[in-house]
Amino acid sequence: MSEDPLVVFTPSGRRGRFKRGTPLLQAARELGVDLDSVCGGRGICTRCQVNIGDGEFAKHGITSNNDHLTPYTDAEERQQKDGRLAAGRRLSCQARIGGDLVVDVPEESQMHRQIVRKRADARAIELDPVVRPMYVEIAPPDMNEPAAHLRRLEAALKETWGVEINGVDVHVLRKLHKTLEDGAYKATVIVRRGKRIVDIRSGFHDKIYGLAVDVGSTTIAMHLCDLLTGEVLASVGRMNPQIRYGEDLMSRVSYAMMNEGGAELMTMAVRDALNGLAQEVAAEAGVPLTDIMEVTIAGNPVMHHLVLGLDPTPLGFAPFALATDDATILLASDIDLMLNPGSRIYVLPCIAGHVGADAAGVVLCEMPYKAEEMTLIVDVGTNAEIVLGDKHRLLAASSPTGPAFEGAQVSSGQRAAPGAIERVRVDPETLEPRFKVIGDDRWSDEEGYNVRPTGICGSGIIEVLAEMYLAGIITADGVIDGSMAERSPRIVAQDRTFAYILHEGEQRITITQNDVRQIQLAKGALYAGARLLMDHMGIETVEKITLAGAFGSHIDTKYAMILGMIPDCDLAKVGSAGNAAGTGARIALLNGQLRRELEEQVRRIEKIETAVEPKFQEHFVDAMAIPNKTASYPNLKKVVTLPEPKFSAADAEDGGRRRRRREGRGRNDEAAE
Amino acid sequence: MSEDPLVVFTPSGRRGRFKRGTPLLQAARELGVDLDSVCGGRGICTRCQVNIGDGEFAKHGITSNNDHLTPYTDAEERQQKDGRLAAGRRLSCQARIGGDLVVDVPEESQMHRQIVRKRADARAIELDPVVRPMYVEIAPPDMNEPAAHLRRLEAALKETWGVEINGVDVHVLRKLHKTLEDGAYKATVIVRRGKRIVDIRSGFHDKIYGLAVDVGSTTIAMHLCDLLTGEVLASVGRMNPQIRYGEDLMSRVSYAMMNEGGAELMTMAVRDALNGLAQEVAAEAGVPLTDIMEVTIAGNPVMHHLVLGLDPTPLGFAPFALATDDATILLASDIDLMLNPGSRIYVLPCIAGHVGADAAGVVLCEMPYKAEEMTLIVDVGTNAEIVLGDKHRLLAASSPTGPAFEGAQVSSGQRAAPGAIERVRVDPETLEPRFKVIGDDRWSDEEGYNVRPTGICGSGIIEVLAEMYLAGIITADGVIDGSMAERSPRIVAQDRTFAYILHEGEQRITITQNDVRQIQLAKGALYAGARLLMDHMGIETVEKITLAGAFGSHIDTKYAMILGMIPDCDLAKVGSAGNAAGTGARIALLNGQLRRELEEQVRRIEKIETAVEPKFQEHFVDAMAIPNKTASYPNLKKVVTLPEPKFSAADAEDGGRRRRRREGRGRNDEAAE
Repeated sequence: MSEDPLVVFTPSGRRGRFKRGTPLLQAARELGVDLDSVCGGRGICTRCQVNIGDGEFAKHGITSNNDHLTPYTDAEERQQKDGRLAAGRRLSCQARIGGDLVVDVPEESQMHRQIVRKRADARAIELDPVVRPMYVEIAPPDMNEPAAHLRRLEAALKETWGVEINGVDVHVLRKLHKTLEDGAYKATVIVRRGKRIVDIRSGFHDKIYGLAVDVGSTTIAMHLCDLLTGEVLASVGRMNPQIRYGEDLMSRVSYAMMNEGGAELMTMAVRDALNGLAQEVAAEAGVPLTDIMEVTIAGNPVMHHLVLGLDPTPLGFAPFALATDDATILLASDIDLMLNPGSRIYVLPCIAGHVGADAAGVVLCEMPYKAEEMTLIVDVGTNAEIVLGDKHRLLAASSPTGPAFEGAQVSSGQRAAPGAIERVRVDPETLEPRFKVIGDDRWSDEEGYNVRPTGICGSGIIEVLAEMYLAGIITADGVIDGSMAERSPRIVAQDRTFAYILHEGEQRITITQNDVRQIQLAKGALYAGARLLMDHMGIETVEKITLAGAFGSHIDTKYAMILGMIPDCDLAKVGSAGNAAGTGARIALLNGQLRRELEEQVRRIEKIETAVEPKFQEHFVDAMAIPNKTASYPNLKKVVTLPEPKFSAADAEDGGRRRRRREGRGRNDEAAE
Repeated sequence: MSEDPLVVFTPSGRRGRFKRGTPLLQAARELGVDLDSVCGGRGICTRCQVNIGDGEFAKHGITSNNDHLTPYTDAEERQQKDGRLAAGRRLSCQARIGGDLVVDVPEESQMHRQIVRKRADARAIELDPVVRPMYVEIAPPDMNEPAAHLRRLEAALKETWGVEINGVDVHVLRKLHKTLEDGAYKATVIVRRGKRIVDIRSGFHDKIYGLAVDVGSTTIAMHLCDLLTGEVLASVGRMNPQIRYGEDLMSRVSYAMMNEGGAELMTMAVRDALNGLAQEVAAEAGVPLTDIMEVTIAGNPVMHHLVLGLDPTPLGFAPFALATDDATILLASDIDLMLNPGSRIYVLPCIAGHVGADAAGVVLCEMPYKAEEMTLIVDVGTNAEIVLGDKHRLLAASSPTGPAFEGAQVSSGQRAAPGAIERVRVDPETLEPRFKVIGDDRWSDEEGYNVRPTGICGSGIIEVLAEMYLAGIITADGVIDGSMAERSPRIVAQDRTFAYILHEGEQRITITQNDVRQIQLAKGALYAGARLLMDHMGIETVEKITLAGAFGSHIDTKYAMILGMIPDCDLAKVGSAGNAAGTGARIALLNGQLRRELEEQVRRIEKIETAVEPKFQEHFVDAMAIPNKTASYPNLKKVVTLPEPKFSAADAEDGGRRRRRREGRGRNDEAAE
């Protein structure tokens, strides 16, 4: 009596003996090998294709080749002819075991394939979407076996896919009969979380897409992903149309407070934009809107509330109570998105009143809850959202930085757009600047340079201030040193203080004393928030810093550290995560298990309210100095020679006045100064 | 050391010893005593009031009186003053144990009180609605304890009510902040199935209602029930406006088939009617529509599909496939009902293609699955829905009776309405008739009788035919015996057959040979369906017969048996269940547990397709005879003397032709004859 053939799957290495005649797909399933299928083993979808090892595999002690499988079936020959099955490959649902085999499952045949992430330090994400298409062939209705369509459909899903359905959308019931009839009782069912029928299509259908959305106060970004491959097929973005109701978050909350129906107007505006973006991204990818079955949304708490149609006004006053901080699941139609009627929205959870679903997205992107190193993550915006911790413990807070980093409240400031100065160097000898503008690779001191800058964006401001500080133009307490006017005509008197002329021309670009103050306030708040979390964590240094958000991605981390925006850290360990909130939304779109993980982690995060911590004010005042009155920067000093601290006499008084003003007013009022 | 006081609750008899100072409500909860509360023990709702036994209870070995309780609290005194707490009663949430007690829980203080049902043979139903109001007082938001509103609300619900919330409607989130603020963080939460928040109200709110709806092809009935007492507060009904698209079910299905958008028109019509009825019933009861949180709907399969907006056309052809036979739960707004946005619809399950959610309602009303006796239940309509069985086994089928029982297809037939003849007696000697019309208690042969009948309704037709048969005017094979014309001028020749003049006047009412044939067809189909189920059950007699539906409630069961509509049975065991489908909807409204029970039972019922059973045709032909060619009626014969069977020569040929026609055509085509 000969033994059953041995089958070894690679790369998993899982192996087992199977009766001759067993389909490879069945063997894979029994061994728990990750092998995709949409058609349920009917030779239609070609997703289960495998390579058959050819030759002797000493390691496995067997000889493997195609002769150890049943011959190519009609379905395989048809798929080969159509170019959907590469030469030498087999469909594992068709090929049956006839002898010992080594079967290689290529990456694209794995259901839970790894999603490639661009950043070297980013963790791999496994594809595991909450919606799956499942093809079934069901028995037509029969007088002798009367059973409702849904019951027969559920039976077929259970038999072919092993899923237990416990609910169905009513729009599916409405088209059930016609869809089944049209497809001669062959249909593809879109199943959510392995238990709810959210759509049905006649015949075989393996197209299923999702949208990952990051609703920022300034811009909205949307990515269309193929839920079966994890691929981003198209990305679009546009300005948040709510801007006409207020530039920053707090002015939008004020608009809602002061105008009856104001919140509803802003809700309509953002939903219109989401519909417009969905149409745009779908058109770009050539995907019908009705194939979009799932949407994930990240956004700060105010955006979170406005998209959901929740009253944002409580977010304008202490204690900044969110309506809900749970992840919210609802129908796309509940927020007026015109996609497939069965498509669902997953809104990421919020962490706290000012640490929103965008910060949760950042957490999902960066996964500090798995970090060995003590990691500081800062998502810089009008409010900086700050997360600190490692796999043992996580803290979060928000800090009212105001909009200065985005170019607002700065005399020549502008958004990061072509024409904006983004890089600056100041010669410490001559005090002459050179710069680069967005959209041009040259430095302004190059031969024949003729670009006319239109303003300066956030990263440019950071650099020019840091360079001015390094050149001695700005003192450690942030005063533009008027005595330097002797050395350069670029330092000029203005309104009883001094200013630095960065660019002279049609559009004169100057850095004023007030500009320096605005950035000091912003960076002071940011640093103080981070430092407060470090106090709570009981640490003096962090091992890794990640900057997220558009601004965070653009700034040169060295200059950010020179200005003291962030604590000292090995500069090699300071990096950017790009639009981490948007990436978090995309991860949540592609992996349902990681949603659960995020929800658990978010509940575990300790929330620190900067507004009620006296230490915050102390750190804030210290952090008004450049880089900081008390904190030392040993790592930075290995790379950059910082000037000897030089304080102006006026500063002590000035800082004190600001401090009192700040304490006397509500949080975020800095934005309105 | 003295023992803890003994507390005995009546009528349950549950008893236990409790520490002094324990509130009575807590003691009751710990013992599992059924004691209501909406306010969660805050002395607001007065639903937990109890009587304190006064005197010595030898049986319990204790002396009980009010001195064994803490004194009346402010809350109790306030409620007594407001007349909401009867003298001598205590609020069990306020009164604390101070000594031995006998505590009587009056019926109105029981949460799961028994609902009084009018019929003596009807089973008692326990109140156990799926939605409950739960009052909570939650901590206001606090900077030092930041937590989202929903999270604090869920914590309060868990603490006060022990419920674990796992979902919330988005409309609740939208008003959450304002509702909590308005009520100073005291609110009543409407919780569905103990886990989902479907509404929230500021402060204390103990009003919660439901609608039980029976959507018939002819009429729609709606009952408004108080979900906290089980009481029916108002009932309304109106004609189904779909009638303009077709009198009976099959003509409506035809309308949907032949007119693009026809099904949608009928769906809109029935939903409009449901909204109109809801407004009417709510106005009558003085209840705001927004306090209606739950709706249950019963209806035949075609109505079921049209209300849900499902395509009814598959129900017009074999194999009569339903889209779904499961109970369907959806939002009221999904079917355009304008009630509370959180209100849900529960549509009862269907049993089979022609045995619908109305039959399921009948099953829930009659609970044959608990019966000791072999019970036959017939809901008579255009299709008779038939259920046979007992606690061991249940069978169901439908039989195409056509609309004759409703007065259609009968020459002088009309709906049961004032002016219609409903009772008839024929003197076997003189062959003279006397009758009663609906809306008048007198017999037509009374002195001074001057009512002018407008036609004859279903129950009148049954009686006149049975009386004509008893008087020998109709032979056993259903022929009006022309030879009787010699004995009475009421028997007249007409169209080569004979007719019987029931009433001579402005409106002449005659019973024609065709009328007899129509009723023979209808009753033959009904009997054959019942008999087929008896074959499957392997029985020759049934022990109990229940007739449901409007017609079933009106007919005299003796005459129904004389005509052979139903099998022989002890007449004392033949009764009417009234609108059992509507009652079933009401039971489903008031008790969520019984919904589960019904769903299980419905799945367990064996469905018999009359159309594919050759035996059905045999039984049908036999049952064309009066009362039946083959079946005997021993029980009936104890009460009524049946004439000797007398067959006309023409019958055999006639029955055979009908049988062939029937077999050559689709089911239900009788209706179109």
